[in-house]
Amino acid sequence: MVRFARFEQNGSVSYGTAEGNQIRRIDGDVLGIWKSTDTLVPLADVKLLAPVKPNKVFAVGLNYRSHLGDRAMPQVPEIFLKLPTCIIGPEETIVLPTDTEDVHYEGELVVVIGKRGRNIPKEKAADYILGVTCGNDVSARQWQKNDLQWWRAKGSDTFGPCGPYLVSGVDYNDLQLELRHNGVTKQKQRTSDLIFTVADIISWISRRATLEPGDLIFTGTPGKTTPLSDGDTVEVEIEQIGILRNKVRRED
Amino acid sequence: MVRFARFEQNGSVSYGTAEGNQIRRIDGDVLGIWKSTDTLVPLADVKLLAPVKPNKVFAVGLNYRSHLGDRAMPQVPEIFLKLPTCIIGPEETIVLPTDTEDVHYEGELVVVIGKRGRNIPKEKAADYILGVTCGNDVSARQWQKNDLQWWRAKGSDTFGPCGPYLVSGVDYNDLQLELRHNGVTKQKQRTSDLIFTVADIISWISRRATLEPGDLIFTGTPGKTTPLSDGDTVEVEIEQIGILRNKVRRED
Repeated sequence: MVRFARFEQNGSVSYGTAEGNQIRRIDGDVLGIWKSTDTLVPLADVKLLAPVKPNKVFAVGLNYRSHLGDRAMPQVPEIFLKLPTCIIGPEETIVLPTDTEDVHYEGELVVVIGKRGRNIPKEKAADYILGVTCGNDVSARQWQKNDLQWWRAKGSDTFGPCGPYLVSGVDYNDLQLELRHNGVTKQKQRTSDLIFTVADIISWISRRATLEPGDLIFTGTPGKTTPLSDGDTVEVEIEQIGILRNKVRRED
Repeated sequence: MVRFARFEQNGSVSYGTAEGNQIRRIDGDVLGIWKSTDTLVPLADVKLLAPVKPNKVFAVGLNYRSHLGDRAMPQVPEIFLKLPTCIIGPEETIVLPTDTEDVHYEGELVVVIGKRGRNIPKEKAADYILGVTCGNDVSARQWQKNDLQWWRAKGSDTFGPCGPYLVSGVDYNDLQLELRHNGVTKQKQRTSDLIFTVADIISWISRRATLEPGDLIFTGTPGKTTPLSDGDTVEVEIEQIGILRNKVRRED
């Protein structure tokens, strides 16, 4: 298992591998060519960033039975798009728009693509995955209900917290996912309960859209969600990955 | 008026400015720092590419009265997202998926963003535009109707032809747009008939999503559209920009 961190220190951005309370700096880009170095940086001295700057951000709706409610079981993975500009890192602030109500958290496992591919068979999907991270698919329910499409309901700036680490070499098909809202557990489920598995989703998307290194896939949220308010804290914790924590504030 | 071309010659990709039957090569990237050179290349010796490789592709639905049909006039610009990987250049091939019917052309004016911005007021929108080009918002009507969201209806690979040139310094608020399907004119309207103007759209999107250099905005299609078939040719012509021509074939 390797835990990659993307971080900022003294104004410059690097990748590294997390080793306890330190980060070992990497030369290069984990999405391309890189090698480890001898430089160790204290974790306390850096700002962790979202693990990648993606070009495309896919997400899956209705992918846990516990989240379906009255809705019918989906026949195929129901994909939607978030915007790459909505991605923020750990400890960054989710901003609630002034002109809508009912903005919810959605704790999710997020897959990071490592290799370009199209028409990827399910049994080869693992080869195209660089790793996984925690994500919060922040969703403005009014806009989701009333707009023609979900572009701002799901893609507004700050609506895509990701991190803290990009983890390679874990069994992403069976990890515990937990979301805490102001310290209270609101979502808790294992990724083994996904209706469409990570391999199903990658195969399905790549049937129509070429996947590229750095693309993100939010795999769906379990259970029920509730609205966020100014001053809240949301934590998405996935075992072996870590805790993605973000504060919430209302837009000025 | 400047007509920028992005082109491939001998395997390398450059920008240039179109001057009659020649292209004057540019050093650098028109989205950043560039300067003109003394090198002239015959247009016949290069392959024109889509004018940019975008990170984000926005589009507007229901933006000409002639396309509304029975649908109510939109109260705000109804935005949806296409995928950057669906963008192809002039003379590239639109591929019709085997597992859906009723894939339509949609001729559109496409705006290319030149400067990063958020919360852009309408009266400043022009400052954020690098130029305009022709686009074809290829749309799989069955998927558009039946999927939860339009990701593959609008974002499948090859569903976003753009080009042939990125034109700066034209009055994009009053250009004639015409689409020909196998040589027969099927759509013809002026951009002055847009329900929401280019400035309205840029201001609206940037209220929620940060715009970045290279982002594309498909501004909407007029009139009625019809299905594409294997072997068809589609041309989108906008005055002062040029003709975007693409062949159509059915996926193997």
